[in-house]
Amino acid sequence: MKLYDCHLAPNPRRVRIFMAEKGVTCEKVEINIVKGENLHEDYLAVNPRGLVPTLVLDDGTPLDEAPAICRYLEEVHPAPPLMGTDPVSKARIAARERHMEFDGMGAAAEVFRNSFPGFAKRGLPGPDGVFEAIPELAQRGAVRVQAFYDRLNRALGTCQFVAGDTFSLADITALCAVDFATSAARTPIPNACKNLQRWHEVVSARPSASA
Amino acid sequence: MKLYDCHLAPNPRRVRIFMAEKGVTCEKVEINIVKGENLHEDYLAVNPRGLVPTLVLDDGTPLDEAPAICRYLEEVHPAPPLMGTDPVSKARIAARERHMEFDGMGAAAEVFRNSFPGFAKRGLPGPDGVFEAIPELAQRGAVRVQAFYDRLNRALGTCQFVAGDTFSLADITALCAVDFATSAARTPIPNACKNLQRWHEVVSARPSASA
Repeated sequence: MKLYDCHLAPNPRRVRIFMAEKGVTCEKVEINIVKGENLHEDYLAVNPRGLVPTLVLDDGTPLDEAPAICRYLEEVHPAPPLMGTDPVSKARIAARERHMEFDGMGAAAEVFRNSFPGFAKRGLPGPDGVFEAIPELAQRGAVRVQAFYDRLNRALGTCQFVAGDTFSLADITALCAVDFATSAARTPIPNACKNLQRWHEVVSARPSASA
Repeated sequence: MKLYDCHLAPNPRRVRIFMAEKGVTCEKVEINIVKGENLHEDYLAVNPRGLVPTLVLDDGTPLDEAPAICRYLEEVHPAPPLMGTDPVSKARIAARERHMEFDGMGAAAEVFRNSFPGFAKRGLPGPDGVFEAIPELAQRGAVRVQAFYDRLNRALGTCQFVAGDTFSLADITALCAVDFATSAARTPIPNACKNLQRWHEVVSARPSASA
């Protein structure tokens, strides 16, 4: 297997952490999205949508989209389970991961893509068109990041991890979202969010967090 | 089971079609999002994010997010399989479904949420804040819908269905995205997109399409 990766981007990190939790390793190819390497012909031949990550299997099959790649890895390397063990926990983890992605990652991306000077003409990732940054979208994203923090903080008052009392893919995506909001959207966890801070310390201390 | 549904919205339709393909029925409760019923206290007690659909199991467990609800239903009612039968097809269908959701549904939602007068102060769904419509986002969405059609049309030149030669959840989400783009974003399939038109006729003719 070969992972087309990017250490500047939050989505490949979801897969790197997932693989580290599973103890799975593979060859990695770094794609620098700030330099636009994801839009080069060579990479578009691997992933026509020009997004990272892509996992290419040994027979050449390309798999893209972080949660879909994780689905493959969970099937092939079931232990430890990170996507649930019965119908309800599978659905709950999938739903919670989506909450983290839409409410957290999506909000931070609205800020970053619409305020980072290097992406002034790349308001969306991928090759389908040149989209100018929309400053109002950066402002909206900043409000949404705060709402994401508040909501996640409340949820973590009733359970140890994002989707219940077991570490799961939802925690991985939440960690990537929070760290992306902190770095790229310059919005760290507020001091008032004690549950979220407690959770962030715990998941950041796992060896996988530095994958 | 009880499905909190909305016939005006594209995401509950994903679940209705999925259930129809499985031959599963349940009680349904209609939530009118244009009237804001999804933001009423009663519904927020079921789904604190104020989004439709939500499936409530017989023991009271609420499941939300269309693909997560489908994941539950696929586990409990495996036949016919709509989310893959081996690790690669499971990942490919999950990835293709996300392409349909982000590139199609997301683009059409950018148009609709930022141009429909009834949502002038509801630029995003859910209760986390009042977001004014952003006209530039409606314009961006319209460009993205065209790119979505072009890309999907090319893909359907090499396979019968969205994720290969078998009907799957990716087709369901694609159908909901195309019909949403056609109705809410007022952008029908272009005449030049012959493969897409062929596919749309086939999937629209399935009895599940009217669920």
